[in-house]
Amino acid sequence: MIPIQKEDSFSEWYNDIVERAGLSDKRYPVKGMNVWTSYGWKIMRLIDSYIRDELDATGHDEVCFPLLIPETEFKKEKDHIKGFDSEVYWVTHAGENELDVRLVLRPTSETAMYPMFALWVRSHGDLPLKTYQLVNTFRYETKQTRSFIRVREIHFFESHTCHASEADAQAQVEEDFVILERLMDRLCIPYSLLRRTEWDKFPGAHYTVGIDTSMPNGRSLQIGSIHHYLTNFSVPYEISYETEDGGHEHVHQTTFGMSERLVGAIIGVHGDDKGLVLPPAVAPFQVVVVPIPVKGKGETVQKAAEDLTRRLQAAGLRVKLDDRDERPGSKFFDWEIRGVPLRLELGMRDIEGGVATYARRDSGEKGALPLDGVEQGARSMLDEISSSMKAKAWERHLSAVADVESLQDPPAKTLRFGWCGEELCGQRIEEEFDLTLLGTPYGHEGERRRCIVCGEESEKLGYAARSM
Amino acid sequence: MIPIQKEDSFSEWYNDIVERAGLSDKRYPVKGMNVWTSYGWKIMRLIDSYIRDELDATGHDEVCFPLLIPETEFKKEKDHIKGFDSEVYWVTHAGENELDVRLVLRPTSETAMYPMFALWVRSHGDLPLKTYQLVNTFRYETKQTRSFIRVREIHFFESHTCHASEADAQAQVEEDFVILERLMDRLCIPYSLLRRTEWDKFPGAHYTVGIDTSMPNGRSLQIGSIHHYLTNFSVPYEISYETEDGGHEHVHQTTFGMSERLVGAIIGVHGDDKGLVLPPAVAPFQVVVVPIPVKGKGETVQKAAEDLTRRLQAAGLRVKLDDRDERPGSKFFDWEIRGVPLRLELGMRDIEGGVATYARRDSGEKGALPLDGVEQGARSMLDEISSSMKAKAWERHLSAVADVESLQDPPAKTLRFGWCGEELCGQRIEEEFDLTLLGTPYGHEGERRRCIVCGEESEKLGYAARSM
Repeated sequence: MIPIQKEDSFSEWYNDIVERAGLSDKRYPVKGMNVWTSYGWKIMRLIDSYIRDELDATGHDEVCFPLLIPETEFKKEKDHIKGFDSEVYWVTHAGENELDVRLVLRPTSETAMYPMFALWVRSHGDLPLKTYQLVNTFRYETKQTRSFIRVREIHFFESHTCHASEADAQAQVEEDFVILERLMDRLCIPYSLLRRTEWDKFPGAHYTVGIDTSMPNGRSLQIGSIHHYLTNFSVPYEISYETEDGGHEHVHQTTFGMSERLVGAIIGVHGDDKGLVLPPAVAPFQVVVVPIPVKGKGETVQKAAEDLTRRLQAAGLRVKLDDRDERPGSKFFDWEIRGVPLRLELGMRDIEGGVATYARRDSGEKGALPLDGVEQGARSMLDEISSSMKAKAWERHLSAVADVESLQDPPAKTLRFGWCGEELCGQRIEEEFDLTLLGTPYGHEGERRRCIVCGEESEKLGYAARSM
Repeated sequence: MIPIQKEDSFSEWYNDIVERAGLSDKRYPVKGMNVWTSYGWKIMRLIDSYIRDELDATGHDEVCFPLLIPETEFKKEKDHIKGFDSEVYWVTHAGENELDVRLVLRPTSETAMYPMFALWVRSHGDLPLKTYQLVNTFRYETKQTRSFIRVREIHFFESHTCHASEADAQAQVEEDFVILERLMDRLCIPYSLLRRTEWDKFPGAHYTVGIDTSMPNGRSLQIGSIHHYLTNFSVPYEISYETEDGGHEHVHQTTFGMSERLVGAIIGVHGDDKGLVLPPAVAPFQVVVVPIPVKGKGETVQKAAEDLTRRLQAAGLRVKLDDRDERPGSKFFDWEIRGVPLRLELGMRDIEGGVATYARRDSGEKGALPLDGVEQGARSMLDEISSSMKAKAWERHLSAVADVESLQDPPAKTLRFGWCGEELCGQRIEEEFDLTLLGTPYGHEGERRRCIVCGEESEKLGYAARSM
């Protein structure tokens, strides 16, 4: 099988990588619901562990809410239900019985959590309430599905917070940006923060900041979002608290969520024609050790490889010893597809020279790594791989934005232009040019351009792209 | 509020502990679907981490299968569907559409996994296939629900294996017993292995071994099970492999599963009138440090408490510094309810004497722990607490079994008696005496008694109890 080239057809390349790297199996008999195979799940679990690290460190408590939401609760916030009405799964029967109240499989957890928040929050002393959960959510996607990027069962984290004031909620949004930066740093994923248009914001939100990265085909991929809800949910769900002076106020709420799309982003942003390229932080194996046997010296080489593996593992690295009875070239090929960041080969010449031959997955660079102090040497090299992957990815992300004066025959990039901010012009941009208006840069001010549609001068910039 | 005494009413005591220790919130608006609050979820996550440790160490790969199973796949194994027919949730609609094929929320994952296993297993080289997942399962319980013990959304681990022969599958069952022993050791939970009766085995299984522990009210609580399936599923799901000599055989399968009932078992087995008593391995906080302020010396005490907390945390212990502005007695009370294994108090006299005053949650024992080498001292004490909790629990478990000659007015214990093994006698035991026949000891042979019903001499022992 000849691998498909990334530049030729991103879409087929992507599907090919997912299959050949063993990340997910989409032959499960429900369309858009895929099986997490062991290797893909290990990557996701590493990402989850960093999410937990960051949210725990910022005082969020992990909870786990039920999957099923009664229709009565689900329908309390009107905009919200309108946004999800056409894409939720309904449980209508249990055993032989028809249920009195139908149950929805959570598409997101606002309507599961907020009736409980109303019980948990009583006084100002209970605030801020900062919670999160890692669960699967369900959406009946009607568009073409794609592993990790558009699926019907979605692995997901969502933080939900309640605050005494709009300003406190705003400060939470700012903290979310810091958490996001630390997370994306580990995943070597560049991103833009774009405040979504009014008609594209999360149903029920005051405003939504989309977190977007760019795919090699010039399309934009939303990998998460941060929402400020004001009191839009706390009013219908009656989440209020007693203030210090005995009054009663509704809480101000925020959420922050990202999904398994992060895996899709890692594949798309870093992968190459040889397969997956994994950032060391999320690689199930950071190093693969391959013994290169020589006639009569097989045992010496094997022992040295085992020793090297043990030393690196003892130093806290995730290391695979590949001592299968296969040609070295075939092993190299396998681990390249699977994106292992660093390969260490050990042959008799290496052993005699006191080195291992290394090959970096990201750059293809090869050389000799001294076995003396190999733990520190391998760790430094992994750090270097991370930095280099991050720098390259950011460079590509920034150069994937093109300033345009017209939307006629635009380049396959994210387009930046003047936009007056009015819905009428926004809708024209989307409908006439078949683009998604991603919104305006979060916090951006000052650069005056003319609206690409109406010509009105404005401080706003618009971003648009074809989305995945 | 006066706490309910464990001995007076186990059932009310249990519910009271769950609520006051903040393990779960059952006010969620779907009956039997409870919210995992932060403290309870931390305990569950620690248990999950040990499950992962043990299954990873024995060569099982973690996977994650979709929640929803098409009715067509679900109905392939006839006994299985009969067993679950009355207690599954059905998804019948998505958005505005009625689905062509109804989808079942997994009550367990055989019928989700096995169509995929049929694709994954091709040749003898693919065997054994050893997988597991940690997911939530769903059963429409009609009996009275109880937090962790009988719920409708169940947090669960399940390992699923495929083998070349019945003997290999049997060897897997033996390995499961070893894994189980190591897990229960960490949780300080005693248990019995009982081969279930034919009419109580898992639907579709060749045989089922139930893992039972005893609750203080004399009832038996099943906390998990291990099943040998032979080829009962691999035939309908067509999971077969090419043998070394080119033939084709169906695989032999096993499963092993345990649920959040482990949390229920920890509460019931170890708790006392003051609240929860957590085994150190699953305690979110293993040590709570309580500064005992003295007038004018508050800062010294606070600093010493912070220093002690940091030292213990640096040594890898999970430690909470409780420096809230509350009376020490009220803090002691709070952490006793929550079951923290070890309390360290620090007052001026302690500091001057170079010690902390310790109080063990399990025994109530108090004394002085030298601050010099306190890391090792605290660790040893936690080990001692584990050993002592385990020994006490095993003693109670073994003494909760009573040998009886008649089932008339039996003691509130697990009853052991002769049973010929015939269904007719078994059914009489269950129906006439309102007991659950738990089965016969796994692997037991040799002790001849007369069947308690028909008088026939037999090598079999029967175990029966009222179950939770």
